[in-house]
Amino acid sequence: MTVIYERVALIGLGLIASSMAHAMRRCGSAREIVGTARSAETRKVAAEIGLCDHIVESAADAVADADLVVLCVPVGAMGAVAEEIAPHLKPGCTVTDVGSVKRAVFDAVTPHLPDNVTFIGGHPMAGTEHSGPRSGFAELFDDRWCLIVPSEDAAPEAIQTLISYWESLGSKCAQMEMDHHDLVCAVVSHAPHLIAYTMVGVADDLSRVTDSEVVNFSAAGFRDFTRIAASDPTMWRDVFLTNKDATLEILGRFTEELFALQRAIRQGDGEHLHDYFTRTREIRRGIIEAGQDTAAPNFGRAPGGQT
Amino acid sequence: MTVIYERVALIGLGLIASSMAHAMRRCGSAREIVGTARSAETRKVAAEIGLCDHIVESAADAVADADLVVLCVPVGAMGAVAEEIAPHLKPGCTVTDVGSVKRAVFDAVTPHLPDNVTFIGGHPMAGTEHSGPRSGFAELFDDRWCLIVPSEDAAPEAIQTLISYWESLGSKCAQMEMDHHDLVCAVVSHAPHLIAYTMVGVADDLSRVTDSEVVNFSAAGFRDFTRIAASDPTMWRDVFLTNKDATLEILGRFTEELFALQRAIRQGDGEHLHDYFTRTREIRRGIIEAGQDTAAPNFGRAPGGQT
Repeated sequence: MTVIYERVALIGLGLIASSMAHAMRRCGSAREIVGTARSAETRKVAAEIGLCDHIVESAADAVADADLVVLCVPVGAMGAVAEEIAPHLKPGCTVTDVGSVKRAVFDAVTPHLPDNVTFIGGHPMAGTEHSGPRSGFAELFDDRWCLIVPSEDAAPEAIQTLISYWESLGSKCAQMEMDHHDLVCAVVSHAPHLIAYTMVGVADDLSRVTDSEVVNFSAAGFRDFTRIAASDPTMWRDVFLTNKDATLEILGRFTEELFALQRAIRQGDGEHLHDYFTRTREIRRGIIEAGQDTAAPNFGRAPGGQT
Repeated sequence: MTVIYERVALIGLGLIASSMAHAMRRCGSAREIVGTARSAETRKVAAEIGLCDHIVESAADAVADADLVVLCVPVGAMGAVAEEIAPHLKPGCTVTDVGSVKRAVFDAVTPHLPDNVTFIGGHPMAGTEHSGPRSGFAELFDDRWCLIVPSEDAAPEAIQTLISYWESLGSKCAQMEMDHHDLVCAVVSHAPHLIAYTMVGVADDLSRVTDSEVVNFSAAGFRDFTRIAASDPTMWRDVFLTNKDATLEILGRFTEELFALQRAIRQGDGEHLHDYFTRTREIRRGIIEAGQDTAAPNFGRAPGGQT
């Protein structure tokens, strides 16, 4: 694999950044990787496991001479980081991010950046319920989408280089307009996460159903919710606060629909329920055909529940 | 493994029954397996793949001389099957079922049964999103719970024999009172399923987000919902219609909680969101410690998304 960026700076060393480091090592698309994190403990762990070529103490130090700067901090922290690094950026470099919301990041970051750098938003649609520098692995992005959301004045060559870089990490790339991105993600990710958090919270509150029952008998549906609801609290707080409008719109639609189904249950309208459930089954088929999940039974786990 | 029942009759040959047949073959706890299904096509497939020792045309034929009769039909069909088989049951046999709701099955089935047979409800807490006689596999019940819900007058020996039988298929067993069972299942299974169906339906309705975007970018949360929402429509229609009260109660709690989180988003109350998400993360830890799921990253799928 040829080198795409000489020097890449990772600001923040959580699941996404640490997976990027492993994936860059795998493919050799960066000659040198510099990493930093706000927490001394995180920097210490990253240094111990040899995550990057250099671990430095500040974001300002990390971006010096970097050709690509990747902001891997929670969405709510992007603006402050941009302000800190702005005076130290190499002219001509590309600044990108990996946040799940794009309009808010653009609005927070770009006012700080000098004219001689290019900002291009990025959103790798991959993750696990784990976080921190030890949680990364090289295969996280393989065959997953990375959405590229350039600002209007970004040079086509800079965009193409960033796309090549994400492809070198294993991703498929698609370009998307900023506000459309935030709506799509509200549907496929943000609203589902809030709903999962809610359901898990309800189960936790119900004193008549003891904790151990919820835990023991979770296999039939609830388990998938708990996995989603175990995702990083800070990251998700920021997602909801910064993609407020789209998330609330989708949740409004969701509630409407849920009330209609509750009424069908109350009224014993089996036909309505059956029709609805038949329709939703089709979407699942599309996802399997698109290669975004497996058709293997037992909800994708190894048969026998030995997983 | 010693034989526990000489002859077992499976009424209905979907995912659960076909997995039971495979698991019985694996452990040898039944000397002879008789199966039947209402649909001629299902019986034909079952015969082709050699699922049972005998495939017969009617439930009445299937139960003749059976020591254990397992009702594996949707909850709404249990009463009619009980009426059909009642005159043909072997005196002293045990009748059980595998439905996800226990009060409604008990009320539908037991009035038809003669005094010289024992009814004991059963609920194997295992499944996949697939259905039909080809979908079964021997390992489905391994290390999963099977809830045993006996009627009050069931003989302890008959209960113990049924427990031994489910253990021979790989399950762990727990006894539970009927109405408590229905409430626990509303929390861990029925409400989560309705919520997943709803969210998938909403995504399907949103014309601004095209189908292919929903499908392509499903990896971040939505995918788990579609898997749940691909479950058998008839089975789930019957679950909601027959566990109406508990499901509606839990959905009411869910809506209340969702509205509180929506308000926190609208008001920008990040602390409320962060606290809530931190709490839900704990439940997940409990589920992993209880062995009901894996801590492997990437939401339990093989790293690299090759699954």
